[in-house]
Amino acid sequence: MSAEKLAFEDFEPGRRFPLGPKPVTAEEIVEFAREFDPQPMHLDEAAGRASILGGLAASGWHTSAMLMRMMADSYILNALCEGAPGIDLMEWRKPVLSGDTLQGYSTVLEARPMRSRPGIGIAKFRHEVENQRGELVCLSENSVMIRMRPAPDINMSPEMTA
Amino acid sequence: MSAEKLAFEDFEPGRRFPLGPKPVTAEEIVEFAREFDPQPMHLDEAAGRASILGGLAASGWHTSAMLMRMMADSYILNALCEGAPGIDLMEWRKPVLSGDTLQGYSTVLEARPMRSRPGIGIAKFRHEVENQRGELVCLSENSVMIRMRPAPDINMSPEMTA
Repeated sequence: MSAEKLAFEDFEPGRRFPLGPKPVTAEEIVEFAREFDPQPMHLDEAAGRASILGGLAASGWHTSAMLMRMMADSYILNALCEGAPGIDLMEWRKPVLSGDTLQGYSTVLEARPMRSRPGIGIAKFRHEVENQRGELVCLSENSVMIRMRPAPDINMSPEMTA
Repeated sequence: MSAEKLAFEDFEPGRRFPLGPKPVTAEEIVEFAREFDPQPMHLDEAAGRASILGGLAASGWHTSAMLMRMMADSYILNALCEGAPGIDLMEWRKPVLSGDTLQGYSTVLEARPMRSRPGIGIAKFRHEVENQRGELVCLSENSVMIRMRPAPDINMSPEMTA
């Protein structure tokens, strides 16, 4: 299985991967907020309307986590990933409201071998996530550590050794 | 109640707020990973040990969400907050493993009135989160929109009007 997965070499700059679609429900906005960000505009429709967000709005940290899940389903789980050192950019451009549907794409910006870890490279991505009206709600960049393709076995055929 | 909350003016550069302590359990690592980041090293102890993370490790996005909860409990829920435009810096310096306890502090780096929104200021924070061995596991910076203190009522006493 592992040999069929995407390796570092497959993440060429310019390559794009689709993200979503991911519908966002009131229930999951509230569930995330209760655990991680219990501010009124993430817990209650009326409080959200009264805030500058204009409705029951997902915590930005929830939007970020949903982005991670969209990345996982699009390419991370199908690649030889070894984790990520952090987030380079995370802009919550517009509120993500209950009933919205998120989608977008990840684009490989650059890819380079790691000096400190032989056999592993770093691919840097830009992630753009829009709502159902085509409005950019989240712009992000981060880097992911990905194993290089294993060297092929040297199984030379009898003919080739002749 | 609202008048007693922290206002923009209370977030003076240099002011520090404690974060945590927050114990991290295997159950919550797996629960978050199932929903948002189902990579093997976040779901399974053996897979975590086999990875470069060295054990069942929280997704970095989970660590970020736990940081948000620690901020909420320390000062955000007690302040006139209006949300955040994003994350300026997020470095996952070391793995957060099952059984770790996180704590740290947020420091106000700068505070300035918003041009676009009268009555609201932006406070920029640096967040430093350590594990129980005093190792920095997460370094982050972000900015939060906070309402300014309402102008006081002009209720002059009879003596003062004399």
